[in-house]
Amino acid sequence: MLVRIASHAADSSTEIVLANAIALGLDARALSDGHGGVTVAIDGDMHDGALDIAGVVSIQRKHKPYMLATRENRSTSTVVMVGDVPIGTGEPVVMAGPCVIENERDTVEIARMVKDAGATILRGGAFKPRSSPYSFQGLGEEGLQHLARARDLTGLPVVSEVMEPDQVGLVAHYSDMLQVGARNMHNTPLLKAVGRSGKPVLLKRGFSATVEEWLMSAEYILASGNPDVVLCERGIRSFDTATRFTLDLNAVPLAKELTHLPVIVDPSHGTGKRSLVERMSLAGLAAGADGLIIEVHPNPDSAACDASQTITPDTLARIIRKGRALTELLAEDFDPIALTVLSAD
Amino acid sequence: MLVRIASHAADSSTEIVLANAIALGLDARALSDGHGGVTVAIDGDMHDGALDIAGVVSIQRKHKPYMLATRENRSTSTVVMVGDVPIGTGEPVVMAGPCVIENERDTVEIARMVKDAGATILRGGAFKPRSSPYSFQGLGEEGLQHLARARDLTGLPVVSEVMEPDQVGLVAHYSDMLQVGARNMHNTPLLKAVGRSGKPVLLKRGFSATVEEWLMSAEYILASGNPDVVLCERGIRSFDTATRFTLDLNAVPLAKELTHLPVIVDPSHGTGKRSLVERMSLAGLAAGADGLIIEVHPNPDSAACDASQTITPDTLARIIRKGRALTELLAEDFDPIALTVLSAD
Amino acid sequence: MLVRIASHAADSSTEIVLANAIALGLDARALSDGHGGVTVAIDGDMHDGALDIAGVVSIQRKHKPYMLATRENRSTSTVVMVGDVPIGTGEPVVMAGPCVIENERDTVEIARMVKDAGATILRGGAFKPRSSPYSFQGLGEEGLQHLARARDLTGLPVVSEVMEPDQVGLVAHYSDMLQVGARNMHNTPLLKAVGRSGKPVLLKRGFSATVEEWLMSAEYILASGNPDVVLCERGIRSFDTATRFTLDLNAVPLAKELTHLPVIVDPSHGTGKRSLVERMSLAGLAAGADGLIIEVHPNPDSAACDASQTITPDTLARIIRKGRALTELLAEDFDPIALTVLSAD
Amino acid sequence: MLVRIASHAADSSTEIVLANAIALGLDARALSDGHGGVTVAIDGDMHDGALDIAGVVSIQRKHKPYMLATRENRSTSTVVMVGDVPIGTGEPVVMAGPCVIENERDTVEIARMVKDAGATILRGGAFKPRSSPYSFQGLGEEGLQHLARARDLTGLPVVSEVMEPDQVGLVAHYSDMLQVGARNMHNTPLLKAVGRSGKPVLLKRGFSATVEEWLMSAEYILASGNPDVVLCERGIRSFDTATRFTLDLNAVPLAKELTHLPVIVDPSHGTGKRSLVERMSLAGLAAGADGLIIEVHPNPDSAACDASQTITPDTLARIIRKGRALTELLAEDFDPIALTVLSAD
Repeated sequence: MLVRIASHAADSSTEIVLANAIALGLDARALSDGHGGVTVAIDGDMHDGALDIAGVVSIQRKHKPYMLATRENRSTSTVVMVGDVPIGTGEPVVMAGPCVIENERDTVEIARMVKDAGATILRGGAFKPRSSPYSFQGLGEEGLQHLARARDLTGLPVVSEVMEPDQVGLVAHYSDMLQVGARNMHNTPLLKAVGRSGKPVLLKRGFSATVEEWLMSAEYILASGNPDVVLCERGIRSFDTATRFTLDLNAVPLAKELTHLPVIVDPSHGTGKRSLVERMSLAGLAAGADGLIIEVHPNPDSAACDASQTITPDTLARIIRKGRALTELLAEDFDPIALTVLSAD
Repeated sequence: MLVRIASHAADSSTEIVLANAIALGLDARALSDGHGGVTVAIDGDMHDGALDIAGVVSIQRKHKPYMLATRENRSTSTVVMVGDVPIGTGEPVVMAGPCVIENERDTVEIARMVKDAGATILRGGAFKPRSSPYSFQGLGEEGLQHLARARDLTGLPVVSEVMEPDQVGLVAHYSDMLQVGARNMHNTPLLKAVGRSGKPVLLKRGFSATVEEWLMSAEYILASGNPDVVLCERGIRSFDTATRFTLDLNAVPLAKELTHLPVIVDPSHGTGKRSLVERMSLAGLAAGADGLIIEVHPNPDSAACDASQTITPDTLARIIRKGRALTELLAEDFDPIALTVLSAD
Repeated sequence: MLVRIASHAADSSTEIVLANAIALGLDARALSDGHGGVTVAIDGDMHDGALDIAGVVSIQRKHKPYMLATRENRSTSTVVMVGDVPIGTGEPVVMAGPCVIENERDTVEIARMVKDAGATILRGGAFKPRSSPYSFQGLGEEGLQHLARARDLTGLPVVSEVMEPDQVGLVAHYSDMLQVGARNMHNTPLLKAVGRSGKPVLLKRGFSATVEEWLMSAEYILASGNPDVVLCERGIRSFDTATRFTLDLNAVPLAKELTHLPVIVDPSHGTGKRSLVERMSLAGLAAGADGLIIEVHPNPDSAACDASQTITPDTLARIIRKGRALTELLAEDFDPIALTVLSAD
Repeated sequence: MLVRIASHAADSSTEIVLANAIALGLDARALSDGHGGVTVAIDGDMHDGALDIAGVVSIQRKHKPYMLATRENRSTSTVVMVGDVPIGTGEPVVMAGPCVIENERDTVEIARMVKDAGATILRGGAFKPRSSPYSFQGLGEEGLQHLARARDLTGLPVVSEVMEPDQVGLVAHYSDMLQVGARNMHNTPLLKAVGRSGKPVLLKRGFSATVEEWLMSAEYILASGNPDVVLCERGIRSFDTATRFTLDLNAVPLAKELTHLPVIVDPSHGTGKRSLVERMSLAGLAAGADGLIIEVHPNPDSAACDASQTITPDTLARIIRKGRALTELLAEDFDPIALTVLSAD
């Protein structure tokens, strides 16, 4: 059940609700709504008497299984800070960089280029999930050091993938945001570990995960104490192999109806095809995404991985320029809360 | 093979190429490129000598299996006229109307409403494919008469679905464009029949058809002598049933790379959910679609079918207003031919 | 609603039920259960009074949407006769022959070979659905004549595909069973036409049709007056293209739980790969299928179509020999009715 | 590349090949074929001169990307020992037990029941991947202790799931075989960890993994030094939700053509529906599977998880009795190597 506590309530209101729940042997967690209010999620049922506490403004017994991620009972959307860059404000955020970190010089060069193009977060892989054990698996800590160096020189916060619980501390040490990749969306030990990391998390949708399963994975992170989750639609597997994956943009407005978390789009993996990245970036923003994550390389054909889906800094600059204009144009009438209210069925 | 004949060539050039092919027992068809030039598609191989004819500017032996639909060897995109409404000019076209025609009064009323909202083509079903033999299968000819009456009163050309070869004459008599539904995309007798109808065709993608299969179905229509085909992406079937179908917007820029035919998007079937239609309409246009087809009803919840995905005329007006602004904004830099040239891989 | 009439009741019982329903403006149809009993399916609701008729043994108001195809309220399974060959008795039936009819001599030769191998029905295509308009589309009536000639010489009844309503009379004239292909499973005009043909129908599952949609297509045929429908699982489309389709054998015991109609399996299209046909034929029978339909050619690699999935008569003979032994072995304990009763959830 | 060393060769032959490869900076591993011969897999290319070594009988430069898992260049199939139970001999092996370990008494009781029914390996989950963070996640080490106790009392070796690298030591301490679940098939750190564990591994196919991706995951384990991998087909995700997953039995004969590893089938997850488990178990064996893994509980409806797909020990006994008879019946003619040779296309 969900218990909502007013923004003007004393902190003790939340503490009493939590204590009463725990006294009944129930699992209970508090999540700030970012405006002073608090939602307490309780895994089990308490009678009204035990919740007759000053500051409690509503009690909801029927709700989605993702109690903390659901937009029900929330009046605001979550804004996630990555370094000093906010995600979820209405202004689209672009994360860009190479598929895999190759060396320091190139990493710094690409960081400068994507910054000039308008990106505000640097992406790059140090630990890479590869289908073959014989493929290059990333530089590991050395790659993270190159990323951190690029951040120091450009001021861009960095996001990098983490693949197992034991790597969380290391990746969190060097980067500003932890990425959980599509192949690990169901990896619950990893979700719990990034949930305890203190760093914001970019949670990619598994390529055959339903939207509900994706939100349940976010719930694992939230329930481990980390409120800073950004969802990323990156393409699902379908019967048609004309594109590498099928970018499921329906999932963007749907997820934004269902959850208060920001949602971004990865048009690089979502298409697998360089010539489609620009159009699908703009489509993602028109669908309501809070940002994009894009693979960029000065010489895409010589990128160490994902060459066929990597674009140039020039194309990135055009996407960002158009994407901002498009978002501004559409911002007038749209309002996520209004959208939710409209969704009757 | 594909033989290209210059726009300044004499008509006899085309005739000689066709005659030489037929003399060799090969199937051959001529397709105008809309700018005076002609492509002759020949199913088989002729040696260069048999094509040493004045006006022949190029000979291509290796090409896509959809010889007539392919963009290879074409410098222009096809513009399809539906009544006096052109599709494929860069200005988005919106087809709107009820799922199924219920009676004359409502049809005329909805036609006026969608016209006021900015739609330029009226859609409505008289023959309906239903999953149950016990469901209402449409008014048939009476429904077509209501549609025609609405056209007479509003000036909007109409598009309506045809389900079997024997209906083609009847539907072509009353409507300005014939729709082949997703469930009939592989119905080759029907494709051949609409190919001989003399009316433009709206070809919906089968919900489990690959993009290549979709273009091969278009090829059936083109090869039957009808150059006026508009493709429509309307959602594919995937593992996630959170939305009725998965709108595959990747298919829009991909199809526009591969073929010279216009491509529109159906966000009503592609989502099955009213609250997602506006966002996905805009996403479709940002992806490069030449238009939209949308189910509209003044009281969506009382619509005779597809109620959950039907929007109001007010929402339609907002979509059209924003969609036009968005298309104009993006038009500056984009150019489909340029896109094709960019697609290196 | 479903009204069940006892096997010992007078014929007039059925007639009165039908008349009462029709008097109320409801659509009503009678379906024999093959043991003297009758189920009347009524599309709408009648009160008990209107059904207080001698011979009525049960009234069911809540049931599957496929009222006639459902196993609910039936104590027996349907046996469909194709010529003198019964399908659905527990003894597996094998339909075999070439993908497409090429000429009379080869057709007769293959017919003799598959008969020697133990097949009891001859298959062969005269009208072929092809993805390209430039591919061979079948011999048409000439192909049907070759099939009929092979039947005359071997005694094997024949099954052949029909692709549009106007072909039904022609194909029904020459063949003993009409096949509706996977691409036409949603073609309701065709379903209605074969429903009025007087010939048994082999209904292939669409490659992206749910089991419920498949049964609804069968319902169209039953509701058009034809009780003789055999379902055929032939592979669905999935994300993995290692095999041409994914043979969905779960659908076999599931369909047999849900419907009283026989179910057979097509391991040729279901795998697309010759080396898998034998194993998947046996798996299909172990899953409970009532038979198989297999593409066979004396020189598979020179078959005019589907060469990669076509097997030799020798392999066919081995499949039939093993398949019969396997079915006998498993027959002892299994009983489809018992299975239904067990399925609690 | 693959270098094959004869069974009669001195051990030094293998060592010299490995040393030469390593001297060239290439990754190289030796895998015994179980009959005295050795295959050395080298990730890179060596010229013939460097391989002119006594005992080398063949050099293969073109092969599948799963160099160690491929059947190419192998004359025998792998037999994996789990405790004293061999998998891959032609005699089907049945692993059975509860979804999740609930307590010692029930675990021992079920172990006795499945042993009486004919199962030879006990399965049971101590660490459970759950979609909700609020669901029971398994007893952990305590569950493993119950399993070990059941093994001590019944003699059945046990298999249990491991979910993260840090658990490998613990699970390997108590169980005889480590299971990598479908949601972890792409978890490469886990694959590497079980590859170094010294225990045989049951590798479930990801529910949206292609057969090639599945074999690449096996390759990760083999390349980490562990030759004892058993593959398990457990259902893939498709568009039809009538069953929980779509059991892809095509994958069984296909995987057995492509790899020398044993393949088993999980009809419990593969159907999600109790009434289909018996038929699909038999279908799996008819498709050529080396065994089954089945969820069993004395009172299925009260099982702590997966109740709807759990069967009784009585049903298990019938499946095993019939499955053995069926396998014997089919064993006469089938021969996996012969099958491979037949697969021409």
